Amino acid sequence: MNTSQNPTAAVIIIGNEILSGRTRDANLAFLGKRCDELGIRLQHARVIEDDQDVIVETVNHCRAHYHYVFTTGGIGPTHDDITTAAVALAFGVKVDRNPEAVAIMDKYYAPGMLNEARLKMADIPVGATLIQNPVSGAPGFQLGNVFVFPGVPSIMQAMFEGMVNLLIGGKPMLTVSIRTNLAEGVFAEKLTAVQHQFADVSIGSYPIFRMGKPGVNLVMRSTEADAIEKVSLAITEMIRDLQGAILNPDE
Amino acid sequence: MNTSQNPTAAVIIIGNEILSGRTRDANLAFLGKRCDELGIRLQHARVIEDDQDVIVETVNHCRAHYHYVFTTGGIGPTHDDITTAAVALAFGVKVDRNPEAVAIMDKYYAPGMLNEARLKMADIPVGATLIQNPVSGAPGFQLGNVFVFPGVPSIMQAMFEGMVNLLIGGKPMLTVSIRTNLAEGVFAEKLTAVQHQFADVSIGSYPIFRMGKPGVNLVMRSTEADAIEKVSLAITEMIRDLQGAILNPDE
Repeated sequence: MNTSQNPTAAVIIIGNEILSGRTRDANLAFLGKRCDELGIRLQHARVIEDDQDVIVETVNHCRAHYHYVFTTGGIGPTHDDITTAAVALAFGVKVDRNPEAVAIMDKYYAPGMLNEARLKMADIPVGATLIQNPVSGAPGFQLGNVFVFPGVPSIMQAMFEGMVNLLIGGKPMLTVSIRTNLAEGVFAEKLTAVQHQFADVSIGSYPIFRMGKPGVNLVMRSTEADAIEKVSLAITEMIRDLQGAILNPDE
Repeated sequence: MNTSQNPTAAVIIIGNEILSGRTRDANLAFLGKRCDELGIRLQHARVIEDDQDVIVETVNHCRAHYHYVFTTGGIGPTHDDITTAAVALAFGVKVDRNPEAVAIMDKYYAPGMLNEARLKMADIPVGATLIQNPVSGAPGFQLGNVFVFPGVPSIMQAMFEGMVNLLIGGKPMLTVSIRTNLAEGVFAEKLTAVQHQFADVSIGSYPIFRMGKPGVNLVMRSTEADAIEKVSLAITEMIRDLQGAILNPDE
């Protein structure tokens, strides 16, 4: 793929509730799509427990290996929200009550409602830049190449859209998908030949069982629209040669 | 939490389609729930690209740090299915056509349909034990403490249930959830006190916005039912003291 020039990113999903299966993460899929559009290669994700040492180690690993790191979860007012302190520790900086964050939250909450527990959310690592929260007041923050978001998807996503101009991407990743009724085993050999012929387009083959009917999505990814177009034609031809059908994506 | 005796597990989700956001993973939530029931502590998950070096490195890291490792994705017949070869490489063993796997697939496919591409799915690392696939024939495998599954959730989950007796767990993790209309900032301080009083129960606080109505799920986790019962009473009392309501989980 010709995306080796694009900046890379990793996502760190912080929260026992994801690992226990109680909550199904929705932020990774959102960030994956947005990174594609922004020309950032989302290369890696980790789901980790609410554990200070693990957060510190994971943040330090990821910020050294990827251009951008997005964390989700653990920045609320309760005892299990330990992400802010752990990220500060990872960078070797202190956490301080941030006057700008206090002012934002003071405006958000009704008089008398901004208690000490909520003010904990205004404790921000020294040197960090705030990420505005248009939904529920309490900000996230950026420290170096690490962007710290809450876990609630609607809030996380609104905050991401508000800071997205800070990210410098490359060429957007384009994706085109063709759905067929053929089984993978029927076209695998020919598809390998197509992939070899067009090395600058990444071709993925994903079987899907929908309402008992098997099908396969063939997904082409590249930053070059004309390269995808060529592969698309080659795959369409391959499916016809094998007497297969091209299905509507919703079939 | 009193689960330090329980064996640990990590999940490796292999596939560009998860990182691109095209496919939303469903296997982690399944494995998280099942591990809780089995008394296995699912501690860590990684989502990685279809890249041989990355798979090798991730498998070797995880199998050294966790009792059980479950991988999903990348064991089909197409060119982008490279998990089997990479896992073999991680263990320093060869991949060989496995006669037992060939026999299984020969039974599954109609005469003449078991072509070379499909037979690729009978290439299994030397020394591995097959994991039966009751849905679509082609087996997964176990090598050391690593269990290799396909990515399609219905198949992955059926295969897991077929081999689950091989896993040795500890005490099942019990979870009880209380939903309240109170905001986190209102009860955070008192909840911290409850957590300090009952250190052997892990208490998580998860704000949820459903149909515009905010609420919080307070989730208690422990292997001891009576310990959870005590915390449940303390949290119920805390909510009443604060003039809050306990909501139906579906409210």
